[in-house]
Amino acid sequence: MKTETTAVIRASFLHFIANPCDVDDESASYEYLADGLLVVENGHIKQLKAFDESDYKQYEHIEDLQGKLIMPGFIDTHVHYPQTQMIAAYGEQLLEWLETYTFPTEKQFEDKAHAKAMAEFFIKELLKNGTTTALVFCTVHPQSVDALFEEVMRYNLRLIAGKVMMDRNAPDYLLDTAESSYSQTKALIEKWHNHYRLQYAITPRFAPTSTPEQLAVAGRLKNEYPDVYVHTHLSENKNEVEWVKSLFPEHVDYFDVYKYYGLTGHKSVFAHAIHLSEPEWHAIKQTNSAIAFCPTSNLFLGSGLFDLEKAEKLAIRFGLGTDVGAGTSFSLFQTLGEAYKVAQLQGEKLSAFMGFYLATLGGAKALSLDDKIGNFESGKEADFVVLNWSATDLQKLHARYSQGLPDRLFALMMLGDERNIHSTFVAGEVAYVNGE
Amino acid sequence: MKTETTAVIRASFLHFIANPCDVDDESASYEYLADGLLVVENGHIKQLKAFDESDYKQYEHIEDLQGKLIMPGFIDTHVHYPQTQMIAAYGEQLLEWLETYTFPTEKQFEDKAHAKAMAEFFIKELLKNGTTTALVFCTVHPQSVDALFEEVMRYNLRLIAGKVMMDRNAPDYLLDTAESSYSQTKALIEKWHNHYRLQYAITPRFAPTSTPEQLAVAGRLKNEYPDVYVHTHLSENKNEVEWVKSLFPEHVDYFDVYKYYGLTGHKSVFAHAIHLSEPEWHAIKQTNSAIAFCPTSNLFLGSGLFDLEKAEKLAIRFGLGTDVGAGTSFSLFQTLGEAYKVAQLQGEKLSAFMGFYLATLGGAKALSLDDKIGNFESGKEADFVVLNWSATDLQKLHARYSQGLPDRLFALMMLGDERNIHSTFVAGEVAYVNGE
Repeated sequence: MKTETTAVIRASFLHFIANPCDVDDESASYEYLADGLLVVENGHIKQLKAFDESDYKQYEHIEDLQGKLIMPGFIDTHVHYPQTQMIAAYGEQLLEWLETYTFPTEKQFEDKAHAKAMAEFFIKELLKNGTTTALVFCTVHPQSVDALFEEVMRYNLRLIAGKVMMDRNAPDYLLDTAESSYSQTKALIEKWHNHYRLQYAITPRFAPTSTPEQLAVAGRLKNEYPDVYVHTHLSENKNEVEWVKSLFPEHVDYFDVYKYYGLTGHKSVFAHAIHLSEPEWHAIKQTNSAIAFCPTSNLFLGSGLFDLEKAEKLAIRFGLGTDVGAGTSFSLFQTLGEAYKVAQLQGEKLSAFMGFYLATLGGAKALSLDDKIGNFESGKEADFVVLNWSATDLQKLHARYSQGLPDRLFALMMLGDERNIHSTFVAGEVAYVNGE
Repeated sequence: MKTETTAVIRASFLHFIANPCDVDDESASYEYLADGLLVVENGHIKQLKAFDESDYKQYEHIEDLQGKLIMPGFIDTHVHYPQTQMIAAYGEQLLEWLETYTFPTEKQFEDKAHAKAMAEFFIKELLKNGTTTALVFCTVHPQSVDALFEEVMRYNLRLIAGKVMMDRNAPDYLLDTAESSYSQTKALIEKWHNHYRLQYAITPRFAPTSTPEQLAVAGRLKNEYPDVYVHTHLSENKNEVEWVKSLFPEHVDYFDVYKYYGLTGHKSVFAHAIHLSEPEWHAIKQTNSAIAFCPTSNLFLGSGLFDLEKAEKLAIRFGLGTDVGAGTSFSLFQTLGEAYKVAQLQGEKLSAFMGFYLATLGGAKALSLDDKIGNFESGKEADFVVLNWSATDLQKLHARYSQGLPDRLFALMMLGDERNIHSTFVAGEVAYVNGE
């Protein structure tokens, strides 16, 4: 008897079942099937198994993607869609970069038509890079959120986003108030949170651009909607840290500002977390908050080096963020390549397994979505990416001399880009095919 | 009367006439012609001028590349062709990386057929990335030099290379001796130096792998052939620096080892130069030696951050090196992107003009070749690269919002790769066309 299914695919498969740091041997952290079969039903994973010839009797149509590698869709835990158009802006570190480039760009998103066009471009870039879930900054304008979510709905992506809350230390044209940010955020949560696969994040830009009053309403919203995310920045840049000290002298440290206002916890994601004191590291752990590690951005803005080993040792959840537009690529491969360099500069190591764990299951855990996405466990949502091992002559040469899976994965991580994406599937459906 | 010429091209042109650090305003360092005409005769630049309609009367055939940007061919001041196949090797810093990956790979180059195949691949990668001149490490095997130069002859590239001299602290199968390295190098110099556009570099790997006796014969060769280059490594890694101290206790510092043996000077190029003492910086300046700055490699191996501003302040000549295989890309764009990050991490700036100066005229000066290549002055050799401003959707979006030349150049530097290379010309002839 033939079973009714949405898709049955034969290919190589790699996914993670544990954090490589939590097991004695990395090989216990993943499952690799050189010749596997993935069965998708109604947008969910039904089964991943080793292929055998009898599968041809069981399934009417098997899509043959032998020679390609399928992984769970990549997860970008920190990105600003309005900054896509200002990627690669020259010469500044964080605070001056915000003033000079970011704020004038974000102003344009009061125009919903502009926001819609940029959202469309942004989603296509995600899919082109194999990214199927992202935690996204919009601008202060509620219509920037509507524009993004409306576009995302067309692709049925699992995506989290929120309107920036910002009521000081930015140009007047980008400021809301404590009250307006409360009512606008509340309305957006009611409209979008848990609407299909969408979720909402309360999004104060960062402590310096919110008054204590606004941080208090952010905390009030989190209290009223405990299931909603919090998404903000933390300790990216040394001048920023000093600035927070001077703005919030009554707090012991930067993280304490967020903690005091009730903005920490297992659904709170803090981007960067570079310049942390020992008590801050422990407070992040103790509140079970998560970190978005954004290596490309951290190097591009000269912000500093995230201490991966410290985060691993404390078993703090963290994922990878492209942080476009301070990051200069939507590619999680390129993000991993830069992550490797950040580790190397500190005498630390980032293996390909740890890297692709972070890009998939680790990211899902950081976003508290590992019950829904991040690997091919039965019942999870069928977001995945089909990869070409080699897309350039250099990659092909490497393949000729590479020795085994770790080697090949590491080459993908260091040499890969969107050319290695063959196609991207969202909820079991093809959402992008390279070259089409 | 029609003039006989090899090629006449209409396009946009950018080239440098001075070091941007040496002029009050960067705009005095370059010439940009939005609509220009380049006239090439017998492989040399005859003239670069603003286009005007009367040019159609003057020249029978004008190749129309309007909309594209032409720059002098890029110059890679430090690269290992035998390491192409081992690009992206995981997890080690310099000394362990040499032991684990490099030496076993270089062993394969005793087989000239292998060397030839790799040389062919290597040259194609250079051209595909717009690189028309490189200073290249071969292996300890003289046939590795022959294989490379024979292949280069097919393309008539201006290229400098040499056989590694290495008589200790490496596996036996890769060692020469002071005597054999002397006679082999001498024979290679006689055979190849100034043969067409080829030049030779005396190439001790680095101080730790040469005995004092071998360094002495290297100096003797330099004395016998003062026009020949010296190419080696200097202060890339902290453990390496310590090792040199212990191997050469009678020398005040690492650079002094090379200086003592007569290996410094205006045709000596030292790769990396990261961990330098103040006296070493001044000794480099005082000997008029040059540095190859290899940012991708320095980040990939976690070696450290080259101090660009220091080099600029001391007016030390330096160029860019991809340092493949410790570098992970043959692209000078990607190298510049990483160079920008190295600068940012130190609170320094690297403008697009300074960047492309380093990739062209700066590199030529570092190699003491600025009388022959590096810009479009009349009489220079006609090596150049035709660029597409935008090759990806993201670059196209950026172009829509970019404001002026510095912005557009910076985007090329941060987002560009081999897809932006339209074609590469060597000595006035097409040597590579993208997609053909």
